Amino acid sequence: MSELSFTPMTADDFELFWPTFKAIVLEQHTYAIDPDINYQAAYTLWCEVPRTTFAVKDSAGELVGSYYLKANAAGPGDHVCNCGYMVTSAARGKGVARAMCEHSQEIAQMAGFEAMQFNAVVSTNEVAVALWQRLGFSIVGTVPKAYRHASLGRVDTHVMHKIL
Amino acid sequence: MSELSFTPMTADDFELFWPTFKAIVLEQHTYAIDPDINYQAAYTLWCEVPRTTFAVKDSAGELVGSYYLKANAAGPGDHVCNCGYMVTSAARGKGVARAMCEHSQEIAQMAGFEAMQFNAVVSTNEVAVALWQRLGFSIVGTVPKAYRHASLGRVDTHVMHKIL
Repeated sequence: MSELSFTPMTADDFELFWPTFKAIVLEQHTYAIDPDINYQAAYTLWCEVPRTTFAVKDSAGELVGSYYLKANAAGPGDHVCNCGYMVTSAARGKGVARAMCEHSQEIAQMAGFEAMQFNAVVSTNEVAVALWQRLGFSIVGTVPKAYRHASLGRVDTHVMHKIL
Repeated sequence: MSELSFTPMTADDFELFWPTFKAIVLEQHTYAIDPDINYQAAYTLWCEVPRTTFAVKDSAGELVGSYYLKANAAGPGDHVCNCGYMVTSAARGKGVARAMCEHSQEIAQMAGFEAMQFNAVVSTNEVAVALWQRLGFSIVGTVPKAYRHASLGRVDTHVMHKIL
């Protein structure tokens, strides 16, 4: 997908993003977020707790996704960052996740982070695991049965990591 | 160490615990916590964010340590818990950490948690790594250079895990 724009997420952007966020957490296939989370708590989690959050739009100005970037830990762990990415259902399979991950690595490097870590990539989310691997991430750990997948039950999660 | 008492941590207990907490985070050998954290933020982190926090005292009523217990993730990840343990300098080497970890596993099981996960055990903290292993935890992942140790520089962290 060419001509994506990345802009700091506004409250208006989050309103457009909320149905995507809500559908993804309700599905319970990928994110360890309370499926009953309300709008304000979701806004705090996605837009206020992180260091920065981007809205991603296509050339027509349609929101296609969003991601956040934050330190993965505090103090002596704050040289490693963490990101979360979500793509709207209409924009899936068009390279938006790849574009967001590449953008986030550039932003992270500019912010001085030395590495990026994903703490709990659900192992059955094979598309994501394969994409992160193609983008240079390694599986550095696997936690047994750490995610209650809505249809598959307890499945493993991967810790994935890339030196930037 | 026999005859330890475990009680829900009060604000007065935290005042007694603060010098221990402050020394441990200033040392930057074990915890990924901002070494400049202030009293109120530390209280929030240790006593308010977790599900429960215990003060541990010896038979003379002296505070010897504290630990917290919380879900390690939200929603479909909230069947796995996480704990953090700190021992006062005067009480080190007397089995307090072991006693706290054993107590926390009992409390976690009673609360319905299925597993316990430590996200970032600093690999050079060999006493802790060995103790957790003796208590049944496995190293399920190792993140390269994820901790800036005050004297050793960037060192690996382990993800450790035990099914309860």
